[in-house]
Amino acid sequence: MNATSDIHTNTTTVSPTPVSPTPVTVIGLGLMGSALAAALLDAGHPTTVWNRSPEKAKPLADRGAQVAATPEDALAAGDLVLACVLDYDALHSVLDPLAANGGLAGKSLVNLTSGAPEQAEEMARWAASHGAGYLDGGIMTTPPGVGRPEMMFLYSGSEEVFEAHRTTLATLGDPLHLGAEPGLASLYDSALLGLMWAAFTGWLHGTALVTSQGTTAAAFTRIALRWLNGAVSGFVTTYAPQVDAGRYPGDDATVDVQIAAIDHLIHAAQARGIDNALPELLKSTMERAAAAGHGGDSYASVVEVLRGDRR
Amino acid sequence: MNATSDIHTNTTTVSPTPVSPTPVTVIGLGLMGSALAAALLDAGHPTTVWNRSPEKAKPLADRGAQVAATPEDALAAGDLVLACVLDYDALHSVLDPLAANGGLAGKSLVNLTSGAPEQAEEMARWAASHGAGYLDGGIMTTPPGVGRPEMMFLYSGSEEVFEAHRTTLATLGDPLHLGAEPGLASLYDSALLGLMWAAFTGWLHGTALVTSQGTTAAAFTRIALRWLNGAVSGFVTTYAPQVDAGRYPGDDATVDVQIAAIDHLIHAAQARGIDNALPELLKSTMERAAAAGHGGDSYASVVEVLRGDRR
Repeated sequence: MNATSDIHTNTTTVSPTPVSPTPVTVIGLGLMGSALAAALLDAGHPTTVWNRSPEKAKPLADRGAQVAATPEDALAAGDLVLACVLDYDALHSVLDPLAANGGLAGKSLVNLTSGAPEQAEEMARWAASHGAGYLDGGIMTTPPGVGRPEMMFLYSGSEEVFEAHRTTLATLGDPLHLGAEPGLASLYDSALLGLMWAAFTGWLHGTALVTSQGTTAAAFTRIALRWLNGAVSGFVTTYAPQVDAGRYPGDDATVDVQIAAIDHLIHAAQARGIDNALPELLKSTMERAAAAGHGGDSYASVVEVLRGDRR
Repeated sequence: MNATSDIHTNTTTVSPTPVSPTPVTVIGLGLMGSALAAALLDAGHPTTVWNRSPEKAKPLADRGAQVAATPEDALAAGDLVLACVLDYDALHSVLDPLAANGGLAGKSLVNLTSGAPEQAEEMARWAASHGAGYLDGGIMTTPPGVGRPEMMFLYSGSEEVFEAHRTTLATLGDPLHLGAEPGLASLYDSALLGLMWAAFTGWLHGTALVTSQGTTAAAFTRIALRWLNGAVSGFVTTYAPQVDAGRYPGDDATVDVQIAAIDHLIHAAQARGIDNALPELLKSTMERAAAAGHGGDSYASVVEVLRGDRR
């Protein structure tokens, strides 16, 4: 290497300032809280944990976690606090005494406790009133999926907290910030779970149908997932802007065509003794859309029935 | 190039025997039948079409189709016959007179008309009694998707017909043979559509929920599809062998946990005036699973409720 080539090719190496992983406090060591702490430890973060029943901390202590004797001690260990407890009552019972003593001032509280959007909004106001930044989160995986980079962690609330800790949060999964309104992560969480339960139940109904004819669930599922992730996802991608525009051109398949087709499903399931509550509900929902004038529109028009438009 | 190098590198070119595309007859020129004929023409197959109302044949004639004046003429054009008409009554009204004159003997009849599995089975017996091979099909796309190689075309019935015409059928989409039982394609078709309608409705319910908070459907849908094609598909892949085994270990998430979570969805939707019939049904279905002893099992155990096991 010589000086001349350096000037022209800009290969001079500047050592990056070594970044020490941010210390993190984890409150609540249920299955999910423990998985969060474990992922942070795996990524080299100094991790302090606290749980109401201290025996839950033992496996994490073995992996290098600092076990705090009290919530006060846990929060004293750093500015970033992840909370994942049973519910908001449990969360307040831990944090209220700390807040009363000014212990939340300057902290970044990332709340991964499940709850309603309104609870997240109230918590954000409460945290602000005690000098803490607040980020609400929804974990879109089960504990074994924590730490896998493709799993989504949804956040809403303080963008400042999110940007300051994005790298640390990325050790848990892929962090997505949905907006400043603190209830959004919880709302998305519920909406996505609703989609999941609907898809699960539709898949199991189909599985019950085809396995009655000697096919295995595994064989059906390979085709079902290809269908879901291919054509069905394509329809949904087409329909989303239709919902935003409030216009639902039925170029590909109309509600009337779907109503005709669902009778084949209902009859086939009935003949095999399979519960038809789900397809019957889907059919009546489509029929309500048709009755509201959407028979020639795409399935996206069903959103108006669900929203109670034109009631 | 010289002879010596040819010997060692095996670059001698052998011209493949030229294969003329198989002549195909298409009966029924609704949107779907017309799309089938167009895809065959695009792939260079000599294509003969017939429709009850002949004006539907005009655009195909412009693209090179032979328009038959009668069903007899249409079938005389070749051995492979694709039928895609309104329903089985329409199919019999076209084919019965031909069969009575022996016109089906030696033909391969591929029936893409929508119907019930029992109708496909009856049709297969009827075709056999008139000397025709029979393949039943389910088209898992809309007319604009015909001809795209990733779209699934499900077939059941004669493996001989399927193997003989696999290459021709592949011009319509990806041909999958499900088994010799003629009703299987129709059964899968209904099962997959049921999954689609359930997923559509769950997605629209979630869309109604989040758009009430100012998010666009398009923004929610990007996350919803990532969720559906990632984590949700992963759960389904885990659950399918559980259904086959009749054992549903709730390692990741139990039915009881899902029941607790669905209340958040129901409350959030109720607060926003959104129709809750779907989540209420899903909740009651989960509760039936829990009541049958599956509270600590995975969601896959819900299949037993749908099948009426332990009733």
